[in-house]
Amino acid sequence: ERVVLMLNRLEKQIQFVMEIDKLKHIYRQNLVADGSRRENDVEHSWHLAVMALLLQEYTVEPVDVLKVIQMVLLHDLVEIDAGDTFAYDPEAGLDKEERERLAADRLYSLLPDDQGCELRALWDEFEAGESPEARFAACLDRLQPLLNNYHTQGGTWRMHDVSSAQVRKRMEPVGESAPVLGELVETLIESAIEQGILRKY
Amino acid sequence: ERVVLMLNRLEKQIQFVMEIDKLKHIYRQNLVADGSRRENDVEHSWHLAVMALLLQEYTVEPVDVLKVIQMVLLHDLVEIDAGDTFAYDPEAGLDKEERERLAADRLYSLLPDDQGCELRALWDEFEAGESPEARFAACLDRLQPLLNNYHTQGGTWRMHDVSSAQVRKRMEPVGESAPVLGELVETLIESAIEQGILRKY
Repeated sequence: ERVVLMLNRLEKQIQFVMEIDKLKHIYRQNLVADGSRRENDVEHSWHLAVMALLLQEYTVEPVDVLKVIQMVLLHDLVEIDAGDTFAYDPEAGLDKEERERLAADRLYSLLPDDQGCELRALWDEFEAGESPEARFAACLDRLQPLLNNYHTQGGTWRMHDVSSAQVRKRMEPVGESAPVLGELVETLIESAIEQGILRKY
Repeated sequence: ERVVLMLNRLEKQIQFVMEIDKLKHIYRQNLVADGSRRENDVEHSWHLAVMALLLQEYTVEPVDVLKVIQMVLLHDLVEIDAGDTFAYDPEAGLDKEERERLAADRLYSLLPDDQGCELRALWDEFEAGESPEARFAACLDRLQPLLNNYHTQGGTWRMHDVSSAQVRKRMEPVGESAPVLGELVETLIESAIEQGILRKY
């Protein structure tokens, strides 16, 4: 009986592993760094996880980096059902919360209860944005596409005619979690305006 | 002077963050789970990191899961320079070690010394395969493409006419690190033979 229970548990875990493969097909607005194509959610999430390792030293509050990595690896999982919502599109954001909550209900229920609850709680914590780990995850989630936009001659800023004020507002969580990274963002925004790849007003 | 040192350190870290974006263009032999296209190294690495979280309970030895995740996130980084070497091609594997060592020398030297040394040591540990963490990382590195091959009607097994004996040999690290996962692999191999998507001899 023990073996049967183990297999059922493992089967659920493997089903989840296969289900989340779909995140490789959810394409974001922003491009990869050479500008050749759009980036998918899995590539974005992997990049945030590596950045969490490398940049954790800059947070104003100590963070549990394993928790941050768990958050960023799966923070966009709900987009398997809810799709990618472009950050600078206010209308598309209107029912985003409800669509994503339903997606989380479905996806995390595929796992054994203990693991499903644990990962769902991490996603809820990320969404609430109130813990040091959630704040650092949000910081990275903003910084990474900014770096890619900067390195692709404006990328989605130019494609969607975004202004520097919109970018500055969007980037607020960076400096809140890590002031040194906030300064970097400001330097890059200034440089982008100067190069004519981000409009000032 | 302190500020200048900080900026130099951060500049190195950001340069590394941008350099590793290239891993999104290194395509592997195996397909994503719906069979629509080949998988890239970043997608593969992200999948291993999530699997490390979910399946750590099955290892025969306790593992430091943060260490495993760090290993798997960057285990294929050297392929930015060295390219992907197909697992079942013995000739391509001949100078693999030397090509990958040179790649590691270049890539990890982009980082500040402390971080470069730390991540390089993790890659060396992964390659040596002698710690519990390296063994579990190798287990996941074998299991994930097997799951995708199984779910894509044989995937690269059929494309490259691989036999069940070759797959069993390739999968040895799975059962060594996690016997329950080794049993799963054997079940899937038997089922694949029965379905005619993996040749028995």
